[in-house]
Amino acid sequence: MTTPRDHLSELSTAEKASLMSGKDFWTLKPIDRVGVPSIMVTDGPHGLRKQAAESDHLGLGASVPATCFPPAAGLGSSFDPELAERVGVALGVESAIEDVAVILGPGINIKRSPLCGRNFEYVSEDPILAGVIGAGLVQGIQSQGVGSSLKHFAANNQEFQRMTTSSDIDARPLREIYLRGFERVVKDAHPWTVMCSYNKINGVYASQDPWLLTTVLRDEWGFDGLVVSDWGAVNDRVAALVAGLDLEMPGSDGASDRAVAAAAEADPASAAALDASAGRVLDLVGRAQARPAVAGPLDVDAHHALAREAARRSIVLLKNDDVDGAPLLPLAADASIALIGEFARTPRFQGGGSSHINPTRVDSALDALTAVAGDRVAFAPGFAFDPAADDQDALRDEAVALAASRDVAVVFLGLTDAEESEGFDREHIDLAPHQLALLDAVIAANPRTIVVLSNGSVVALPFADRVPAIVEGWLLGQAGGSATADVLLGAVNPSGRLAETIPHRLEDTPAFGNFPGSNGHVRYGEGILVGYRWYDARDIAVSYPFGHGLSYTSFAYGAVAATVAPSGDVVVTVPVTNTGTRDGREVVQVYVAPVASIVERAPRELKAFASVEIAAGATAEVVLTVRRQDLAYWDVRVERFVVEGGAYRVEVGASSRDLRATATVEVAGDAVVVPLTPESPLSEVFAHPVAGPMVAQAFAAMQEQLGGTGDDGIMSGEAMTKMMGSFPIGRLPSFGWGLDRDGVAQLLAAANAPQG
Amino acid sequence: MTTPRDHLSELSTAEKASLMSGKDFWTLKPIDRVGVPSIMVTDGPHGLRKQAAESDHLGLGASVPATCFPPAAGLGSSFDPELAERVGVALGVESAIEDVAVILGPGINIKRSPLCGRNFEYVSEDPILAGVIGAGLVQGIQSQGVGSSLKHFAANNQEFQRMTTSSDIDARPLREIYLRGFERVVKDAHPWTVMCSYNKINGVYASQDPWLLTTVLRDEWGFDGLVVSDWGAVNDRVAALVAGLDLEMPGSDGASDRAVAAAAEADPASAAALDASAGRVLDLVGRAQARPAVAGPLDVDAHHALAREAARRSIVLLKNDDVDGAPLLPLAADASIALIGEFARTPRFQGGGSSHINPTRVDSALDALTAVAGDRVAFAPGFAFDPAADDQDALRDEAVALAASRDVAVVFLGLTDAEESEGFDREHIDLAPHQLALLDAVIAANPRTIVVLSNGSVVALPFADRVPAIVEGWLLGQAGGSATADVLLGAVNPSGRLAETIPHRLEDTPAFGNFPGSNGHVRYGEGILVGYRWYDARDIAVSYPFGHGLSYTSFAYGAVAATVAPSGDVVVTVPVTNTGTRDGREVVQVYVAPVASIVERAPRELKAFASVEIAAGATAEVVLTVRRQDLAYWDVRVERFVVEGGAYRVEVGASSRDLRATATVEVAGDAVVVPLTPESPLSEVFAHPVAGPMVAQAFAAMQEQLGGTGDDGIMSGEAMTKMMGSFPIGRLPSFGWGLDRDGVAQLLAAANAPQG
Repeated sequence: MTTPRDHLSELSTAEKASLMSGKDFWTLKPIDRVGVPSIMVTDGPHGLRKQAAESDHLGLGASVPATCFPPAAGLGSSFDPELAERVGVALGVESAIEDVAVILGPGINIKRSPLCGRNFEYVSEDPILAGVIGAGLVQGIQSQGVGSSLKHFAANNQEFQRMTTSSDIDARPLREIYLRGFERVVKDAHPWTVMCSYNKINGVYASQDPWLLTTVLRDEWGFDGLVVSDWGAVNDRVAALVAGLDLEMPGSDGASDRAVAAAAEADPASAAALDASAGRVLDLVGRAQARPAVAGPLDVDAHHALAREAARRSIVLLKNDDVDGAPLLPLAADASIALIGEFARTPRFQGGGSSHINPTRVDSALDALTAVAGDRVAFAPGFAFDPAADDQDALRDEAVALAASRDVAVVFLGLTDAEESEGFDREHIDLAPHQLALLDAVIAANPRTIVVLSNGSVVALPFADRVPAIVEGWLLGQAGGSATADVLLGAVNPSGRLAETIPHRLEDTPAFGNFPGSNGHVRYGEGILVGYRWYDARDIAVSYPFGHGLSYTSFAYGAVAATVAPSGDVVVTVPVTNTGTRDGREVVQVYVAPVASIVERAPRELKAFASVEIAAGATAEVVLTVRRQDLAYWDVRVERFVVEGGAYRVEVGASSRDLRATATVEVAGDAVVVPLTPESPLSEVFAHPVAGPMVAQAFAAMQEQLGGTGDDGIMSGEAMTKMMGSFPIGRLPSFGWGLDRDGVAQLLAAANAPQG
Repeated sequence: MTTPRDHLSELSTAEKASLMSGKDFWTLKPIDRVGVPSIMVTDGPHGLRKQAAESDHLGLGASVPATCFPPAAGLGSSFDPELAERVGVALGVESAIEDVAVILGPGINIKRSPLCGRNFEYVSEDPILAGVIGAGLVQGIQSQGVGSSLKHFAANNQEFQRMTTSSDIDARPLREIYLRGFERVVKDAHPWTVMCSYNKINGVYASQDPWLLTTVLRDEWGFDGLVVSDWGAVNDRVAALVAGLDLEMPGSDGASDRAVAAAAEADPASAAALDASAGRVLDLVGRAQARPAVAGPLDVDAHHALAREAARRSIVLLKNDDVDGAPLLPLAADASIALIGEFARTPRFQGGGSSHINPTRVDSALDALTAVAGDRVAFAPGFAFDPAADDQDALRDEAVALAASRDVAVVFLGLTDAEESEGFDREHIDLAPHQLALLDAVIAANPRTIVVLSNGSVVALPFADRVPAIVEGWLLGQAGGSATADVLLGAVNPSGRLAETIPHRLEDTPAFGNFPGSNGHVRYGEGILVGYRWYDARDIAVSYPFGHGLSYTSFAYGAVAATVAPSGDVVVTVPVTNTGTRDGREVVQVYVAPVASIVERAPRELKAFASVEIAAGATAEVVLTVRRQDLAYWDVRVERFVVEGGAYRVEVGASSRDLRATATVEVAGDAVVVPLTPESPLSEVFAHPVAGPMVAQAFAAMQEQLGGTGDDGIMSGEAMTKMMGSFPIGRLPSFGWGLDRDGVAQLLAAANAPQG
């Protein structure tokens, strides 16, 4: 049986060039002459956004109904790649039923700032968590014969001027933070496609960056799929082709196809790139053709149930203090409930923009709570979404009166689509003043108040000390309302964890002052200290730390053991006991850092985690694997990842700031041979196996000379010794110190000679 | 009369090349054939370090006695360029007496981190303050016919691997923070020489950076003097020559002269550079020859008196709380005093390294206090400098007993030469534990405790809430002991102000995590938010803010007036009244920021200041000028400084966080014509005078189209409008939105056409 690629050699340059851009917003061009069909791609990533009306050339109109699963901000809080994979399977099934070849997701960009308007589509501030969840989604989607599109590659961490701004990032944060998750997904899950981002990186458009799209993605990581542009991300189509951008989307008006064809005719390199890219498009068509048949229609109920399960697992119980001797949550079975807040009736369960799904149904918390608790629930909207609405005072008064009359008040607050969306960034992290004013009034009327949040990215919690319970609901997809009710009522024991730190203030956040940049550039000045790495390094108090999340039960950790496996990976074992009276799920987290390092390192980095179901009273022996490669830092001297040898601190706990057990493990380092140069500081020369002994004698004489100035000298001997550690060996002759030029040259030659 | 330059045309290539490096550590080569003498340069900057023994080829031995004035960390706290100029005159006189042509200073590098070992030699974390004080010093030195050497040019803000590391800095912080002070001194004070620094800037050695040494320094700023290398800073002598480095110091072994000569023979550009540089060396010799004769010997007493006056003005009274109804300082005339701390007997008054002066005499606080207060003063050293000394406990016990027996305890704490020096950076900002332990014990024995600090750069003050009075003495030069006694006893009313913020913790400092870099690079990730700009922008609590300093009297501020002069400068007028009972000096500070800006700006920046003597009960009408150019930010689009038009907030006060009066002034902006390009965001297109109206119609139609998706749409209309503001006009055709490719091209052409 022939595959589409078999026709590559039969195609004319114009035909190959025609494959280099879309037919329209959502489909690729067929080549009918050789039987290559048109395939369709659609927006994702947490549901299928298949355009309903073909006439909608803007790509923004209504789509066919599909299940809206929790956006990544929610799903990532599950810390569970298996759950992500099951959601991925469902996304694949829905795509297959609709004959969609590729669903455009997942998005795993790092949440560099809580202001990024698209954070709700992204997983985490941590690259390992983002990569693991992303890999789960890709594996699930692609298990159904449907392609995924890992996006937005790369360093697209803001919406402000996203189509032109340059993300100016040093090599270490780029490699260790912003690319690491992509690397993980590519290597573990082999996405059919990768979507390049709109922005530039260090001045070069991602869409035409040969280093990014070819050197890193294909040569280093072994990616064998297709690179598609984000919609409208192509700047110079021919440059993009040569850089490794296979498919431009959406369709151009033919101009770029003609430019590609002309370049291929004129230039062998472009012709070769065209052949390679056309082959990859044909491969993608072939993969789509190989998809097993899936019978429709969609099982709406089953997928809604999965969406509800995923939403339950995405909810993070931030706080649940005792009131009158017992925690306020779950709600007592006989409690009368003032349910307050428009979000309880009109849930915000997804974000605005290309990921916006036309859901098959929508659960509200109001309906779900009423279905169980009946008359015990009374609702007041409390506020209108529009801050300028003229009925805010009346709505507030009504809600406060209701709160005063009930055992507990459950107040739903959140962000609206106007405040947070793809396409623009927030300018602050505050909830609307009229919502906060409502909450203050409710607390005054009834201190037994629970706050439930609906927000795609972090909001400040100025009320955190004044309410006994807070439920972080993120955006939970179409079943979020019922899932929230499940948690509030105790039908479900919450197990979500924060995939991003909740800071006290915007001013505390790592990118503050460097976000979103201006005049075409944004400097990632915080370097590797993103998210909890920043708050921990600078010892900044936060509202709730990365990895935090409470349960209705409690867990105790035993002693941790960490050993190095033959593979070099570190195997971490810890017994975890459910010490409470109900079954629950604990997210066990492993943070690792070298005890000493020659470069700046974060105090701790998440390297492994597991969401583990543990019955009341039971103990689970949790085994987690820290990949050796994840211990590496990017060494700019040799331009590769390097694992430093030595002791590593392994901290195991329930959050990044709730560390329960610690072990130390010795890791064998990578051999890094950095040639000595005239710039090598004496500290490195002394540490060099060959040069060290050679220079020791010369240095001792010099030390005596320098330190011998006694009390009249300009520096203490101790200071002199410290200074000399930084001194480049090649400059010694300038001062007549210790070695002359020939002596330096001989020493370097000896040091850098191939060792027998 | 002929000048040395007149001989330039007579010189052979080899002779010219011989001028390109020193004869030895401290002198230039003569050319006896044509009568060009050798001239001498010596270390500074707060005193003359003229090598005593010519045989000391290391350059580190004892020097001739000279007056040690307060290092810049002290002098900068005076906020007084006139005082700096008087000190400069004295430095010039001492240089002239010793036949020194150039004294190597001042150093005005920005204190980026308190860890920098050489901060004691630098003025401030603020470029205007550093520039104004630096200009005062240069003007004073050069008024005596002696040259100064403005250093270390540029972006040399650490000692760790200072000879090789690359300071990686974006254009705005480089221009607005790190170069601005140098620009001010060059333009205002015309230093004879500028000393290039050891480090690289963005990968290029300062010593061979044509952009730095020629484009910026000479072409933009009009520098007409000589560029000398920091000692040993030359990497590639020929590259340095072509870049604009005139003089390599110290002497090489002849290799670089030969390389220069060979390059000049081979390459016309090198030959031209050699002619230019040789001419500049001859000019410098000519300037030195023109120095008026100065008769020695040095008036040691007069210069010591000036050193004492400067030290008095450098002392910053950080805290002076009431105890039993009255402030603890000045010391009561009948108080019995426990004087504690080795620093009171053995003052640390300067730092280690090239600036280390052999002082003509040294005052200790112990002697000075005893001379006035006699038997009322009893001394106990309290600790030994060496933490490992085995008598620490006994010394502490003795001091505590003394403190308990006296009315007040004055405890001198500080940093030693081993803890802080040129050549290496600190790793923390803490005082030694044994000193802090002593203080704690003294406080317990006698809460009427005054702390006096001796430190070249900031130390943390964990005891600040537990002592009623703190005197920040920095390093005060040879008369620091008596000057400190003057302040403690009330003979002098303190008037120094913090030229650098005292933070609570190292973790709060701007460069934390990015300092001192590794593997050859240090990223200035905090950008423009250096010093108080950082603490204010992020709203971080500090121990004592920039500009802070108390007096024994009090000052009240009246209403501020700010007007724009015909020159464009902003003239700020404010009446300041001495509301206390003794004469005093107030440092009036003007902070300015635009009310709105298209780029990130600090909340406020120091733009003018004045140290004003005001008699008790009197009112001074203080007039300060804010230079219009100092309001500018560096615009990367047009690569020049740009003053934004609009309202500026003018805050006047006694510190950066003690603002007493505010005004607003309208400033006319610079005309910046940024051509529209396909990358121009629609927000800029709309604001464009030509393109705005043209595109409005197309956009209205598009808005209707995009917003018209109604409740089924993927974004709210408000969100869509925000998104489109970031949208580059050149990408509209990719989406078929509003304009096609021809439409965009026509619009850009019209917008960028020369306007009639």
